[in-house]
Amino acid sequence: MTDSDRLARITLGRIVEPGRLSMLGAVTEVGALTVLDSLRDEPETRSRVLQAEVDAQRDLESATRAGLRFVVPGDAEWPAGLDDLAHAGPVQERGGVPLGLWVRGPLRLDALAGSVAIVGSRAATTYGTDLAREIAADVAEAGRVVVSGAAYGIDQAAHRGAVSVGAPTVAVLACGADSVYPPRHADLLAHIAAEGAVVSETVPGGAAMRVRFLTRNRLIAALTGGTVVVEAAVRSGALNTANWAARLNRHLMGVPGPVTSAPSAGVHQLIRTGAASLVTSGPEVLEVLGAAGEHLLERPRGRDRPRDALTDRQRLVLDAVPVARGATSASIARVIGLGADATHTALLELEVRGMVEGGVDGWRLAALAHD
Amino acid sequence: MTDSDRLARITLGRIVEPGRLSMLGAVTEVGALTVLDSLRDEPETRSRVLQAEVDAQRDLESATRAGLRFVVPGDAEWPAGLDDLAHAGPVQERGGVPLGLWVRGPLRLDALAGSVAIVGSRAATTYGTDLAREIAADVAEAGRVVVSGAAYGIDQAAHRGAVSVGAPTVAVLACGADSVYPPRHADLLAHIAAEGAVVSETVPGGAAMRVRFLTRNRLIAALTGGTVVVEAAVRSGALNTANWAARLNRHLMGVPGPVTSAPSAGVHQLIRTGAASLVTSGPEVLEVLGAAGEHLLERPRGRDRPRDALTDRQRLVLDAVPVARGATSASIARVIGLGADATHTALLELEVRGMVEGGVDGWRLAALAHD
Repeated sequence: MTDSDRLARITLGRIVEPGRLSMLGAVTEVGALTVLDSLRDEPETRSRVLQAEVDAQRDLESATRAGLRFVVPGDAEWPAGLDDLAHAGPVQERGGVPLGLWVRGPLRLDALAGSVAIVGSRAATTYGTDLAREIAADVAEAGRVVVSGAAYGIDQAAHRGAVSVGAPTVAVLACGADSVYPPRHADLLAHIAAEGAVVSETVPGGAAMRVRFLTRNRLIAALTGGTVVVEAAVRSGALNTANWAARLNRHLMGVPGPVTSAPSAGVHQLIRTGAASLVTSGPEVLEVLGAAGEHLLERPRGRDRPRDALTDRQRLVLDAVPVARGATSASIARVIGLGADATHTALLELEVRGMVEGGVDGWRLAALAHD
Repeated sequence: MTDSDRLARITLGRIVEPGRLSMLGAVTEVGALTVLDSLRDEPETRSRVLQAEVDAQRDLESATRAGLRFVVPGDAEWPAGLDDLAHAGPVQERGGVPLGLWVRGPLRLDALAGSVAIVGSRAATTYGTDLAREIAADVAEAGRVVVSGAAYGIDQAAHRGAVSVGAPTVAVLACGADSVYPPRHADLLAHIAAEGAVVSETVPGGAAMRVRFLTRNRLIAALTGGTVVVEAAVRSGALNTANWAARLNRHLMGVPGPVTSAPSAGVHQLIRTGAASLVTSGPEVLEVLGAAGEHLLERPRGRDRPRDALTDRQRLVLDAVPVARGATSASIARVIGLGADATHTALLELEVRGMVEGGVDGWRLAALAHD
């Protein structure tokens, strides 16, 4: 893209809110310069465009001084996933491929192919934040970038999990990429900007507004290969991100929790309706994301049990030994249709293994052997 | 069925273990009398058959005196669901339509159409038993019979939940229907036998053995319209019941729990693989079981929020008010492309509702209004 295209995109970003689909669709269709020209030709919008052009030039200069770059379609580091927004339609009339992304930090955005969004409630429980941190650490350690929104609760835990294994992470903000929101995350955001990237569609200096949180969520979904929702109450903003992920055909995953915990209710709803698949750990997230054969996950198995080491005959006999009352070896033999001697021998072998007990009233299972 | 057929079935039950598929398949195919005749003609099995016939006559008489009845295919109360076992194939070489069911209690087994199995770990947590009890109470109150296995933990809680709303419940035992296992559930089983039914495929007086637990589980799945697994470790017997439910095309449901809780791991695996659907409450269980239109469940919604009562214009303005820093009404008007007066009016309306605050540095969202 030319510098004039880049500047036209910054100018348009000064004129409309992020995610104004009518505008973004036109830009995707005919290009930013053409859209800007036509706005400049309209008497109604002409003065506003002229002012925005001045502001945009100033934005670019001051942002560059502050270490921000404005990444636009066509740039080498433009993350291809964002282009899927062109056909994903609107949610509450918002959507579209962003004009560009303001980026602060060394991580190139094209490194986000195969990245994972980990999002959830601000009002998270310790259960949720512990899990978000663990899953983020596992995913980051496997070489996938963790993307989140730098909010309190799950977002923060996800970023910290990636940081804890020395991996870069990406925060997508609703305010400008040079701003800090929430204020108490200043240190976290400084660290992310130093090692990963802080990203925003909003003009530098722009404030966090509700509309910007919603449009920001579509970027988190589009930038990543899959979204993991850790805790989300029934009307949580994280479900907006989940909605975008589903719409964009990204992998959508949910971590269950106690059904008695309100912050898990939204996640359970996602799983119940089939929108999200259930995951309980980082390796399971990697399995869902991974190409066939990649990240093969061993199915969880119970601990090996003494039973597994038995011969077929021993197992046959063991299965016929009563749990509570004693039985003679003859009656056990009868039940299973095995010879009396063979049955008795097997019972003795099982006794040596501590699995059955012989008593005055006959043979019975040793305590808990039947569990 | 004739009395001689009934007696032939009891006799065959004396000769082979419950769930011996080769035998049960033959009985379903050619009838109990024919199978018994052919065994009586074999020199190898003749003496055993003759003895079993004597025992069977005695079984029937003493069981009748003890208030047990032997329900066989063709009886008016024969539960049709059991016939599905004819085509469900074996699990670990066990399966098949049972020869008959010994029943103690007033509940007719044909009342089990639309019943629900609630099963799970013996080593359950309080979380699990509380939920099992609540779900069982909800389901029983909706007129569906709760079926379980009378074991410690989830089974017990399920039975008690049904009892708590004065509903009959059915216990399917691995030992004889006249026996008590586990011994500490004597009172519970006495109550179930008085109000509902205690059921077993095992001959009266028969002991609880491992093989009988496994074959019992197929009956729990086959007798019911759906199985709910509340807690089940990765190698729990409840997963055997779940396996049978899936095989029999019954609804299979799982209640999630903390992913950090081992007794929930088996349930999560069932949901994750798509074998079970996730349910979190009795109404959700009823929704899964219900025919279309029946038990319509209102989707959980977050509490109504003040935002819902706003006009479109008020919402538009609210969405453009910064979260953290103040903004002038003129700058807000510019962002949303609305007239300054209309914007200012909307801001005042929002202030009256306590949703925004005007200050020396302009307008900002009231605390927590952005949640």
